[in-house]
Amino acid sequence: MAADGSRAAILDAAAACFMARGYAASSIDDVARSLGSTKGRIYHHYPSKGDLFADVFRTGMAMNYAAIEPARRLAGTAVEQWRHMATIHTRQMIVTRSYQRVVWEGVELYLRGATTPEQREEFARLMQVRNDYGAIFRQVIVAARQAGAMRFDDPGITEQLMFVSLNSPLFWYTPRPGETKDDIEAIVAQVVHFTARGLGVGEGNL
Amino acid sequence: MAADGSRAAILDAAAACFMARGYAASSIDDVARSLGSTKGRIYHHYPSKGDLFADVFRTGMAMNYAAIEPARRLAGTAVEQWRHMATIHTRQMIVTRSYQRVVWEGVELYLRGATTPEQREEFARLMQVRNDYGAIFRQVIVAARQAGAMRFDDPGITEQLMFVSLNSPLFWYTPRPGETKDDIEAIVAQVVHFTARGLGVGEGNL
Repeated sequence: MAADGSRAAILDAAAACFMARGYAASSIDDVARSLGSTKGRIYHHYPSKGDLFADVFRTGMAMNYAAIEPARRLAGTAVEQWRHMATIHTRQMIVTRSYQRVVWEGVELYLRGATTPEQREEFARLMQVRNDYGAIFRQVIVAARQAGAMRFDDPGITEQLMFVSLNSPLFWYTPRPGETKDDIEAIVAQVVHFTARGLGVGEGNL
Repeated sequence: MAADGSRAAILDAAAACFMARGYAASSIDDVARSLGSTKGRIYHHYPSKGDLFADVFRTGMAMNYAAIEPARRLAGTAVEQWRHMATIHTRQMIVTRSYQRVVWEGVELYLRGATTPEQREEFARLMQVRNDYGAIFRQVIVAARQAGAMRFDDPGITEQLMFVSLNSPLFWYTPRPGETKDDIEAIVAQVVHFTARGLGVGEGNL
């Protein structure tokens, strides 16, 4: 746990609650109960449920940025760089799943306009962080296409298809008893392989 | 509109409300207001919001079954049959989007356990309908693999990746002013093409 262990524990518990019940049905009370803590402890850090939700979203995105950072600096072709980034990103969807489900729900709430006026500004900033993250991937797939290593038509639609596919464990993955790291890597590899082929990566580069 | 125009109009309005606000934040009042109708008219057909939601879900799935039915009877290879079914299914995600968003949310609510005990039985039946629909597609991709026209590892994971990809317009498609049928078909074609490649359909069959 990080230096501020109390805040980190609250975020973990909140991410788990929001994942299990969704934003609307979750309360600060639920988070406190799952921590065996008082509501006061949470309000000490977060004035409202909306602030707590936004910080889980922010933390989930920060985890993704930090995770892909080393892959961005690797030497190699665009398609190799993409494969590293895509593998790390997909692994994130499994190992930091509760946070990433909150990011997903946050995007849905924002697009649906189900945010209060005060939240809206904060969410717009979070959406920008997420769009910037998407742009990093888009840059790499466009470079791979220029190099002849990927083939696709509209980059906007293709970015969406790529992320939906890489993010998909959020919707269908559930941990199994006795599951090993290798089991998870095997799942990640299938997701990345499917997506790479979808992007038109040829046999020689798979 | 069908013979029972009143019920069909209620379903259309309800699907639009649930899509816009989500299940929790929607009310029978909202649906009545959007119809310029009384709550009584809706309660005449549906005892509760949950019943109305379940009927939108059921209708959305019925639309999909009806839409793919002709493709299931076509002569041709498994991969050709898959392409027809996948194209129709993806088009459904765009043209009956509000219903399909409700199906999506219903699955989420069910898996999250956010249903009342009375709803749970009804939802379990709806999930079965959806699983049976998925099984039709799975049968076709497994047949295509046996024929050497698709290549993938785990059929369960592959079915999930396939549907997430085909369903993805639910999350990123929004109608544009002046959009034509051809514009929609071009989007559908890109989605199906990405997915076909993901499933390992070779160049000769694309």
